Amino acid sequence: MEIAKLGEFGLIDRLTKDIEIKNASTVKGIGDDCAVLSYPDKQVLVTTDMLMEGVHFDLTYIDLKHLGYKSAMVNISDIFAMNGTPRQLTVSLAISKRFSVEDIEEFYSGLRLACEKWNVDVVGGDTTSSYTGMAISITCIGEAAKEDIVYRNGAKDTDLVCVSGDLGAAYMGLQLLEREKSVYYQQVEEARKKNDKRALEELSHFQPDFSGKEYLLQRQLQTEARGDIIQKLREAGIRPTAMMDISDGLSSELMHICKQSGVGCRIYEKNIPIDYQTAVMAEEMNMNVTTCAMNGGEDYELLFTVPIGDHEKIQQIDGIKLIGHITDAKFGQILVTRDNQEFALKAQGWNPLS
Amino acid sequence: MEIAKLGEFGLIDRLTKDIEIKNASTVKGIGDDCAVLSYPDKQVLVTTDMLMEGVHFDLTYIDLKHLGYKSAMVNISDIFAMNGTPRQLTVSLAISKRFSVEDIEEFYSGLRLACEKWNVDVVGGDTTSSYTGMAISITCIGEAAKEDIVYRNGAKDTDLVCVSGDLGAAYMGLQLLEREKSVYYQQVEEARKKNDKRALEELSHFQPDFSGKEYLLQRQLQTEARGDIIQKLREAGIRPTAMMDISDGLSSELMHICKQSGVGCRIYEKNIPIDYQTAVMAEEMNMNVTTCAMNGGEDYELLFTVPIGDHEKIQQIDGIKLIGHITDAKFGQILVTRDNQEFALKAQGWNPLS
Repeated sequence: MEIAKLGEFGLIDRLTKDIEIKNASTVKGIGDDCAVLSYPDKQVLVTTDMLMEGVHFDLTYIDLKHLGYKSAMVNISDIFAMNGTPRQLTVSLAISKRFSVEDIEEFYSGLRLACEKWNVDVVGGDTTSSYTGMAISITCIGEAAKEDIVYRNGAKDTDLVCVSGDLGAAYMGLQLLEREKSVYYQQVEEARKKNDKRALEELSHFQPDFSGKEYLLQRQLQTEARGDIIQKLREAGIRPTAMMDISDGLSSELMHICKQSGVGCRIYEKNIPIDYQTAVMAEEMNMNVTTCAMNGGEDYELLFTVPIGDHEKIQQIDGIKLIGHITDAKFGQILVTRDNQEFALKAQGWNPLS
Repeated sequence: MEIAKLGEFGLIDRLTKDIEIKNASTVKGIGDDCAVLSYPDKQVLVTTDMLMEGVHFDLTYIDLKHLGYKSAMVNISDIFAMNGTPRQLTVSLAISKRFSVEDIEEFYSGLRLACEKWNVDVVGGDTTSSYTGMAISITCIGEAAKEDIVYRNGAKDTDLVCVSGDLGAAYMGLQLLEREKSVYYQQVEEARKKNDKRALEELSHFQPDFSGKEYLLQRQLQTEARGDIIQKLREAGIRPTAMMDISDGLSSELMHICKQSGVGCRIYEKNIPIDYQTAVMAEEMNMNVTTCAMNGGEDYELLFTVPIGDHEKIQQIDGIKLIGHITDAKFGQILVTRDNQEFALKAQGWNPLS
């Protein structure tokens, strides 16, 4: 169905008609000039992110449902990265004429799936048109007790540096998708040159070969915010001294924590968690897997520091890896390689403006 | 300066380096995964808006400083429309390569001017790139005591319907800008056809003729949120029963209030406030000025209802006009023309999706 047929309010009605409010802090959701929230006992966390077609996502790779899911998750991830609990989300969407009502419903279904997973209320938004491409802007709101909030600036000398999950897989997933896309276009071009209609017909059913690489795709297309790790840390009685989520790459994020905390760090290459599929794919593509793990973005794992006294507790938690420790600022930000060489960290992470 | 030279973090540093936090409710502004706010005694209002180049603004009309100002003001306006006080704002900006660092600084300077006017803290944002055009997404956060919040659904039979300022001027300003733009392009085309280099040279200094229409331009380009009206209502001890800001047009907004409040309304054409310049311009363009006032968007005036007992108090406030009254739903939503004909209201306001 064409979106113009429904109009702005018809579309909003259709997208939001069965949204149920789950959080006591949501006083009023969609339908007025503002959403109304109530946070008498907690501090309020607010984060916002904008995703542009062609820059942050490519609709030849990702379907709209996954895109909706990912758009919500990357914002929810920022709330967890402050040691908070996500509660509300607003979504603004700008779409060109090539999108149908059903497309937007697909996007919303993914967005709402992510919200349901973490009990987040969709409380507002804006759906408008764009001359070209799709633009997505999401704001997520969460809560935390004042004393629970973890900033980037609390890391102390001797603290342990930890990451959740594994790194580099989302980036490798993107490499894989780009490779298959270019293979596809190459074959199409060749078939066109030869005017080979049968080959073109076959290519219209082109199935890229992802076997043995499913995890990489999942990491790129189905981003998960690590609220489970936050929960485990709470249960273990561990309060990180500094924390952030890894969206641009481990190197870049470590440098943020060190800069804001006024400390240095020593990270051990051998400790950086890397999945088997990530390593195989890096090998196939002639890339250094550590570089991918240090600088590949979009993992949305948590990077955090804990007091050295929590060493044993941390080691007992599944899915957390100790990768190094915090030092005095004068020792710099150092990566120690497997063969014991030392390198200063460089932020070579993804930069949307370069 | 090219933006790539600074990079994302360099640009953010440059844009935000001298931002001062003014509100006690802002615990932490820019620089972490989230902003942190504290609202122990008030409810929290959240609104968000997305503006797309070519759809919501045209950079041949509006310079980046005015655009920044307007982008902030339209969001601040939504907080006032709930009878709240704006406190924080986040801004996301996607820009293509044709913009320089100085351009973005211009945008920020306008945005910050609007924020300073209403004492709003810029607490977060995102600056990223776009393949084409500019996309802006702003979220504004405000506060209000629970009992002060005015929703759209509180209008009661016999309530008076009021608007602030005057209507239709922003729309007429847009018509004027579009007319001058088309005159300019027509002249350029003619000069090109004739290969008239002197005419082309002169056209490069083209000055559109806006004399006697300054107010229309101001209303289109320099949007003001009506916090002053909110203040006056408070001082007069008036609490509106329903309120919203007029962004899409009076007709459409009246219909929202009637629908959500379950009431009808009777609006008198003769009472609709229209500036002299709006009337002259409508005449020049052969448009019905009442239609412009009812359906022209972007006035950002306040539409609200008050109990009939406030009649005298309302009449003593400068800048508020009584345009009709609320009725039982069964009487419908009626516009009474100057010659006493009655018409059902229609939402013909601006629709970004049609």
